[in-house]
Amino acid sequence: MVDVGAKEITVRTARAAGSVLLGPEAFDALRRGACPKGDVLATAKVAAVQAVKSTPALIPMCHSILIEAVKVDFALKEADHSVGVTVVVKSSGKTGVEMEALCGVAGACLTIYDMLKYTGKGMTLDRIRLLEKTGGRSGDYRRAE
Amino acid sequence: MVDVGAKEITVRTARAAGSVLLGPEAFDALRRGACPKGDVLATAKVAAVQAVKSTPALIPMCHSILIEAVKVDFALKEADHSVGVTVVVKSSGKTGVEMEALCGVAGACLTIYDMLKYTGKGMTLDRIRLLEKTGGRSGDYRRAE
Amino acid sequence: MVDVGAKEITVRTARAAGSVLLGPEAFDALRRGACPKGDVLATAKVAAVQAVKSTPALIPMCHSILIEAVKVDFALKEADHSVGVTVVVKSSGKTGVEMEALCGVAGACLTIYDMLKYTGKGMTLDRIRLLEKTGGRSGDYRRAE
Amino acid sequence: MVDVGAKEITVRTARAAGSVLLGPEAFDALRRGACPKGDVLATAKVAAVQAVKSTPALIPMCHSILIEAVKVDFALKEADHSVGVTVVVKSSGKTGVEMEALCGVAGACLTIYDMLKYTGKGMTLDRIRLLEKTGGRSGDYRRAE
Amino acid sequence: MVDVGAKEITVRTARAAGSVLLGPEAFDALRRGACPKGDVLATAKVAAVQAVKSTPALIPMCHSILIEAVKVDFALKEADHSVGVTVVVKSSGKTGVEMEALCGVAGACLTIYDMLKYTGKGMTLDRIRLLEKTGGRSGDYRRAE
Amino acid sequence: MVDVGAKEITVRTARAAGSVLLGPEAFDALRRGACPKGDVLATAKVAAVQAVKSTPALIPMCHSILIEAVKVDFALKEADHSVGVTVVVKSSGKTGVEMEALCGVAGACLTIYDMLKYTGKGMTLDRIRLLEKTGGRSGDYRRAE
Repeated sequence: MVDVGAKEITVRTARAAGSVLLGPEAFDALRRGACPKGDVLATAKVAAVQAVKSTPALIPMCHSILIEAVKVDFALKEADHSVGVTVVVKSSGKTGVEMEALCGVAGACLTIYDMLKYTGKGMTLDRIRLLEKTGGRSGDYRRAE
Repeated sequence: MVDVGAKEITVRTARAAGSVLLGPEAFDALRRGACPKGDVLATAKVAAVQAVKSTPALIPMCHSILIEAVKVDFALKEADHSVGVTVVVKSSGKTGVEMEALCGVAGACLTIYDMLKYTGKGMTLDRIRLLEKTGGRSGDYRRAE
Repeated sequence: MVDVGAKEITVRTARAAGSVLLGPEAFDALRRGACPKGDVLATAKVAAVQAVKSTPALIPMCHSILIEAVKVDFALKEADHSVGVTVVVKSSGKTGVEMEALCGVAGACLTIYDMLKYTGKGMTLDRIRLLEKTGGRSGDYRRAE
Repeated sequence: MVDVGAKEITVRTARAAGSVLLGPEAFDALRRGACPKGDVLATAKVAAVQAVKSTPALIPMCHSILIEAVKVDFALKEADHSVGVTVVVKSSGKTGVEMEALCGVAGACLTIYDMLKYTGKGMTLDRIRLLEKTGGRSGDYRRAE
Repeated sequence: MVDVGAKEITVRTARAAGSVLLGPEAFDALRRGACPKGDVLATAKVAAVQAVKSTPALIPMCHSILIEAVKVDFALKEADHSVGVTVVVKSSGKTGVEMEALCGVAGACLTIYDMLKYTGKGMTLDRIRLLEKTGGRSGDYRRAE
Repeated sequence: MVDVGAKEITVRTARAAGSVLLGPEAFDALRRGACPKGDVLATAKVAAVQAVKSTPALIPMCHSILIEAVKVDFALKEADHSVGVTVVVKSSGKTGVEMEALCGVAGACLTIYDMLKYTGKGMTLDRIRLLEKTGGRSGDYRRAE
C-alpha cells in the first residue's frame, strides 16, 4: 500500500456513474415497484453507501479514509430500459475517493440486478466509470464523454 | 430475504464475465508488469475470491452460502486494450451463486482499475454480466451473446 | 463456543420484537416520510437483514449458520408514538436462530433512531425480546405476554 | 449519508445505557459466574467495544469515525434481577458518537442474553437510550430522567 | 479457491497451539490480573473465537465453513515466563479446519501481546503450529514433537 | 479501550517480522512457484495488507487508525528452509501501529501455511515479534536481537 503520509489533507470529491441495462420486463417491474424482495432503489442506495464504506476491505491496496458525504442518485431511462446510477463521495484526507465512488456504483448496480433477477438473468452492468474528481496533488479531473 | 427453506440442495454453478477498457497506456503497464503497487492480476484474483465470499455482506438480500470453488481467469485483448475477467463459482445449496460470480467479477475489475489508475483515470468497467448458470429450480441458463 | 456437532439438523424459526418510543415529533416525521437521510423503514429493513447475517460477528459465542429467510415488519402506533419492529428468521441447522432475530430487531431499532435523531435525542429502544421459537432439542417456546 | 465536511473537529462524547431484565434464575447464574460459555461480563465488554467500532457497518447512514476511548460498565440490581449496561464513547471528529454508544449498549445486552439464555429465554432488553452527549454543533444534551 | 465439491461431509477437528514468550514483567502482570485494559485471557479467548470465525476473510483461499465448536485453553508456564495457547475447532463439512485452529491461536496470541505491551514490547509469538487433525480424505495427522 | 484523546498526533511507524519454517518440500514448492492455489507470496502480501487494515476487528482493544503505508517483504532462506516476513506500517495518529504490523506478519505467515499445506502440515510459524517502532509518547524502540 503506497505511502500517502507526505500528502496534504485536502477536500476531495469523486463522482462516478454506471448503469444497468434492464430490458423491458425488469424495467417495468422497477417502475411499477413490483419487486417482491422490497423497494429496489432504497435497498440499492443503502448498498451503495455500505459499499463506499467497505472499499478498503474490497480493494486490497486502498487506504482507509473517513468519508464525509455520500450521495446516490438513480435515473430511469425508458429509451433503452436502463437505470443509471451516480454516486458522489466527499472526504478530507490524504488520498482520493475515486475507488469509493466506483465501489458505490458497483454495489448499487449489483443490488439492482439481485432485486430484479427474478424477471430474467440477461441484465448487464454497463460502463461503470469515474466522471469527475477534485482535490489532491494530481489536480481535478473531468472525463471527456 | 425470501424463504429458500423449501428449495432442494443441488450443485449450482455460475459463470460471469466483464472487462476493463484500459486504454493503451494502462494496457501496456499491465502487460509489462510495471505497476508499482504490485502484481495487478494476482491482486485482482484475490480481490475476486474475497468479493465472492463477501457477497452476503455487499448485497443486502443475498443469502449466505458455502462456496465450494472459485475460478478466476483473465484475458488481455490487445485489439481494444482491454482485460477480460471471468469468474466461475460452485456451491451445493438451496440458492444460486449468480450474485457471487457477478460480485467476483466486479471485485476484480475494480481492483484492476485501482492498481492501474496511476496511468490515467479514464478506464471503464464494461459489460459485467452472467454468462451461464446451472442447477436449482429455475434450471440452466446460458446467455445468448 | 459450545459443541453443537451432535445436534440434529432441523428447521428452526425465531420471532423477536421490540419498539422505539419515538415521541410526537419523530413519530410525525416518520409518518410523513420527512427524514432528510432517506426512507427510514426501508433503510431499517436492510439494517435488520444485515444485522441478522452479522450475528456471529457481533455476538462472540454465536455459531455461524445459513439463514434461509428473514422477514421484517413495522407497525406505527399512534397511541404511544412508537414504532414496533418484528423480525422472523428461519434456518435449517444445528443451532437456533433466536440471537439472529434479536440482532435483527436491535439493528432495525438503532437505525430508526439514527435516521430520526435529528428531531431529538430522547427516543428509547424498548422491550427487545424473543416472542417465539420453534425447532431444536429444547422444543418450541412461546413467550407469555 | 449527510455531508459533515463543513463541521468542526471537536471532542465529542456520548454516554448511553440500557439493561437486561434477567429474572431470578439468570441473575443468579450471572452473580455466581456459573455460565458454561465463559465469563459473561468480560465477553459482553468485548462485544460492546467491537459493536462500537462496527457502528458504520451496522447502521447504514453512520459515518466512519476514529474512536478514542470506550468505557463499559455493568451494574447488577438485585431488586429487579437486572443488569445495567453503560457505555461511554469519546472521539475527536466531525460527527457525534451517540450511535456508537447505543450500539455498544445493544452489543453488550445481546451478548448477556446469549450467554445466559440456557437458563430461559424470557429475558428482555430494556430501555436502551442516550443519557448524555457533549461536543458538536448541536451542543450538549442531557436526558431528563 | 480449489474445488471441494466432490469431498465427503465428515466430522473434522483440528488442534493447534502456540505461545507468547512474555518475559518476567508481563508474566507477572498477567498472573496478578493487573492489566488496565481488562481481563487478558477472557479477552484473548473471545479474540480466538472471533478469529476462528473470521478465517475465510483473513486467509484468501480458505473456504467458508460452519464451525460447530471452538475450545480455547491457556497455560501459564513460570519456567520460561510464557503463556501457551491451545485451540480446538470442530466442524462437519467438506474441508478441514486446520486454518481455523491456527487463526484462533494467532488471534489469541496477538491479543495477549496487545493487552500486555504496556509492560514492554519485547514479547515474541512462538511456534504457532498444528498439533493434530482428524477427518477428511487425507486422514488423521498428529505432529511428532 | 483506553483513552488516547489527549495523545499527540505524530508520525508513527512499526516494523515487525516473523517466519514460517517450511521444511524442504514446501520450501521447494514455494521456490519453484508450484502451488496449485496460485502465487503464494503475492497472495500472502495481499493477506498481510488486509490483516493490517483489519486489526481493530481482530484485536478487541485496538483503536481504529488511518494507515498511510504498508510495506511487505519476503526472504527465502535456504539454510533452514524458511521464509521470513517483514511488515512495515506507517500512520499519523494518536496511537501506535505495532499491533497492525504484527497482525500483518501473522496474516502473511498464516496464508503461506494455507497455500503450502498440501505439501505437509508440519510447518511452524516462528518468532513473530516487533523489531522497531518510532513516534508516540513512549518514544522509539528497537529490539535487541
